Amino acid sequence: MHKALDAILRRLILQGRLDVRWPDGRLHTYSGGESSGPAAGIVLHNTRAIRRLVFNPGLALGELYMDGDAEPLECSIYELLEVLMLNLGRDHGLHPGARFNLGLARIKRRIDQYNPAVSSRRNVAHHYDLNGRLYSLFLDRDRQYSCAYFPTGQESLEEAQAAKKRHIAAKLMLDRPGLNVLDIGCGWGGLALTLARDYGARVLGITLSQEQLVEAQARAAAEGLSDRVRFELRDYRSVNEQFDRIVSVGMFEHVGVNHYAEYFSTVRRCLKPEGVMLLHSIGRSGPPGGTNPWIRKYIFPGGYSPALSELMAAIERSGLCTTDVEVLRLHYAETLRHWRRRFAANRDAITTIYDERFCRMFEFYLAGSEASFRYDHNVVFQVQIAPDQRNVPLVRDYITDAERAASRQRQSA
Amino acid sequence: MHKALDAILRRLILQGRLDVRWPDGRLHTYSGGESSGPAAGIVLHNTRAIRRLVFNPGLALGELYMDGDAEPLECSIYELLEVLMLNLGRDHGLHPGARFNLGLARIKRRIDQYNPAVSSRRNVAHHYDLNGRLYSLFLDRDRQYSCAYFPTGQESLEEAQAAKKRHIAAKLMLDRPGLNVLDIGCGWGGLALTLARDYGARVLGITLSQEQLVEAQARAAAEGLSDRVRFELRDYRSVNEQFDRIVSVGMFEHVGVNHYAEYFSTVRRCLKPEGVMLLHSIGRSGPPGGTNPWIRKYIFPGGYSPALSELMAAIERSGLCTTDVEVLRLHYAETLRHWRRRFAANRDAITTIYDERFCRMFEFYLAGSEASFRYDHNVVFQVQIAPDQRNVPLVRDYITDAERAASRQRQSA
Repeated sequence: MHKALDAILRRLILQGRLDVRWPDGRLHTYSGGESSGPAAGIVLHNTRAIRRLVFNPGLALGELYMDGDAEPLECSIYELLEVLMLNLGRDHGLHPGARFNLGLARIKRRIDQYNPAVSSRRNVAHHYDLNGRLYSLFLDRDRQYSCAYFPTGQESLEEAQAAKKRHIAAKLMLDRPGLNVLDIGCGWGGLALTLARDYGARVLGITLSQEQLVEAQARAAAEGLSDRVRFELRDYRSVNEQFDRIVSVGMFEHVGVNHYAEYFSTVRRCLKPEGVMLLHSIGRSGPPGGTNPWIRKYIFPGGYSPALSELMAAIERSGLCTTDVEVLRLHYAETLRHWRRRFAANRDAITTIYDERFCRMFEFYLAGSEASFRYDHNVVFQVQIAPDQRNVPLVRDYITDAERAASRQRQSA
Repeated sequence: MHKALDAILRRLILQGRLDVRWPDGRLHTYSGGESSGPAAGIVLHNTRAIRRLVFNPGLALGELYMDGDAEPLECSIYELLEVLMLNLGRDHGLHPGARFNLGLARIKRRIDQYNPAVSSRRNVAHHYDLNGRLYSLFLDRDRQYSCAYFPTGQESLEEAQAAKKRHIAAKLMLDRPGLNVLDIGCGWGGLALTLARDYGARVLGITLSQEQLVEAQARAAAEGLSDRVRFELRDYRSVNEQFDRIVSVGMFEHVGVNHYAEYFSTVRRCLKPEGVMLLHSIGRSGPPGGTNPWIRKYIFPGGYSPALSELMAAIERSGLCTTDVEVLRLHYAETLRHWRRRFAANRDAITTIYDERFCRMFEFYLAGSEASFRYDHNVVFQVQIAPDQRNVPLVRDYITDAERAASRQRQSA
């Protein structure tokens, strides 16, 4: 087993450096011909760790870290994952057997992503019904649990999340007060409240998380916005009202490719003929692929990040028009870096809520996600959609202009 | 046959109005419940026209118009096509038989779009080696034979074509002089010369049209730019040099879906690791479909407009990253309106070059294309592509900013 893992690492690590401390105490350094790149190390405490890394590395590494069977060696878990992801993101050439497996993987994907309403609810509860205090200890004050927007790259997390909401509002063309907005997957209500407060919208936010619902409703009441913002515990498939605008941020990842047709037929049914939708979702810039098994097991059961080809095909079949596609690259890596640092800074407080294994699980999730956005083709798609191609301006400059005006207004306020 | 066509028209015309003068002299008006919308009419001179419209309307209408068997009734050919396209663009519900045909159509599409280098050359010659004077009689002075860009909608054709080139240059990030640019499908050289003159680029423009090559080379010499701009008669598949930038405007429509992998492997091979590409192509905002048989026979043999899902799938498989997608809607309808009007204004001069049947063919092509961009889900995709997602700025504002700066500079010059 030692030999098998050794052979894999020799082939994998072509950039940067990886030190491995084997269970017998020996230290070996793996590095490709390219001397540049980050360095990291890993301690493997037992042969179980080696065996599991050979047979199912995607699932094993996270579990070994959670259980203390494998640990970073003189570096952080992020630095370890950075070296691994940097090298996994390279083109190593696919073994014909691996290609065959991709075919099987496609079928497995369909099964993994079978998300009828009852599973969706259970899957959402798995992650979003965690103790609310946890999220307040690593997210920004508005609890935006999705990719922020860094126009200069120098923004604080709070500023970047505000910029994200302005970016979305600009694309939603909330150019007059009183527009009815449906927010599919409203989280703790931050976006819905902003659209009501700053843009005069009337918003229905729906979520499947009981924890999020209670918090969102409390915030609406506290801000005196309950007359303009409603929150409901509701599956997207059950919505039948019509809206001027639909927004959906960081929720589409939970839909599953089996259900894209249902999702967009909901959008088509609920969006007025002159309406506009903005869909914000994690995606992959390469061809369709599967979800990492560790992420699926521990963080997002039923989740899937689409390739643009899959997303576009679903929209085309729905009869809706795609009017714009922005590919947000690296913004999520920056966002996750902020979350990871806040999580680390608040680790003591978090261990009063959850145990050490949970903390390691969460750290592995944040670090792995950041590395995957930096090195492994993960991106965020913002897709603007309309029933009629005439619904949005001829040129995109209105987005930049609206955002800058809103930003100036905010600074002078 | 009369009855069959009558039944089709009753079902088809739901918006606006269509008067039909049948061969026996009777006049019948078709209009749906919706009173609004444009009105037009058609004269059918003989039963042959009726029969052909029933069996193969996509091919027949254009041929009948070219041969004088069918003509607009008290309206222009554009107004006639407008009413037809407006109604064809609606969702009439597909007959199960039609769905089956779509399956066969997919196979036929593959055959129609088999474009090895020798066919590509023949197909290009078919349209672009027409007498050069023809193009000067309906295009702008720079002979931009692709969709213009109308930021306000009020621009002249000359202004809108200049704005299009600025828009493309901004996305190409020509932020320093001396960058090497490959222009795949350079036409009469207008874009290549602009990039050299205004942005200091060194450009290789390739075309398969002998007429275009001669004209482009003459223009480069006349402008004293021959040291910075080369034009060659060359298939995209034969290029092996590496470039900082690749641009391809209005050429991808001739590639054919069978050859997308070859096209993007050429891009991958010829684009430096830190490079950027801008692809500008007609596409359809609905699901993949075929090319109109009349257009394929008379105007663009081997041509095909992709759905975004097809285009994205090909880019994903190539290992390149899509960094931005703009969907230019209605700009081509405006462009074609300008071309159609110029063509009409210069009709007398054009009939000294080509016969009446050719003129009618060209009018039908321009009018049909305009109507299809206005009513039938045709759009233009501008896709920015890079080997690495880090090659372009984090946010898109740089496009607006660069264009506005270039526009101000131009006005003050």
